[in-house]
Amino acid sequence: MDQDYDDVIAAIHFDDQGLVPVIAQQHDKGEVLMVAWMNRAAVVETLNTRMAVYWSRSRQELWRKGNISGQTQTIIDLRIDCDGDTILLLVDQKGVACHTGRRSCFFTSIIDGQETVLNTPQIDPKVLYP
Amino acid sequence: MDQDYDDVIAAIHFDDQGLVPVIAQQHDKGEVLMVAWMNRAAVVETLNTRMAVYWSRSRQELWRKGNISGQTQTIIDLRIDCDGDTILLLVDQKGVACHTGRRSCFFTSIIDGQETVLNTPQIDPKVLYP
Repeated sequence: MDQDYDDVIAAIHFDDQGLVPVIAQQHDKGEVLMVAWMNRAAVVETLNTRMAVYWSRSRQELWRKGNISGQTQTIIDLRIDCDGDTILLLVDQKGVACHTGRRSCFFTSIIDGQETVLNTPQIDPKVLYP
Repeated sequence: MDQDYDDVIAAIHFDDQGLVPVIAQQHDKGEVLMVAWMNRAAVVETLNTRMAVYWSRSRQELWRKGNISGQTQTIIDLRIDCDGDTILLLVDQKGVACHTGRRSCFFTSIIDGQETVLNTPQIDPKVLYP
């Protein structure tokens, strides 16, 4: 039966829009895959289903990651930081995390004062979102 | 001579408070160390000095990481995500990132519906902030 997780939800400091930023990291290799947002309902559903569920700020609805693309994230651990205002999600990413077809959304370096693209897509986005 | 980095700064989407969230990750071992915020000035100083400089939302001033504690972060790479609204900083963390004396701020797991502390401090915070 689903739980409401009231005790641990109380440890999370949601912002004035009721949201908290979430980092998804591949649990074994350590790649930072993406950053998204959760509201309270997304955290509770993620804990209950052990699959990543975010809050889409653009669509203003729950975003069950991989629902359309098949690129799901199975939850290994859910951690909060020392002041409770950020979540670190350790996941097992199926396929790719980024809508561009790349494994990680962080594929652009600007350290040298210009945008350097580090990776090419592994999957054609047209295959992910037909 | 210091650069202004106008071209790459234009690729970053700062929020309505002029801030962008920043993940600091240990470049070789992959640990997610902390999340903080940067404004435009913090990004430019970080790029120029190759040391992590954040914007402290509580103190409303530039926060040169490690200035007091000595726990500095040398920059290896600075990446932006696919929609330019999050920064991933690959750093070499000296000592510990967390003000509690732990290596990472993400030391509390809530996956099992209770708060489980995963690590003990490596350094007494009284030594970091005498």
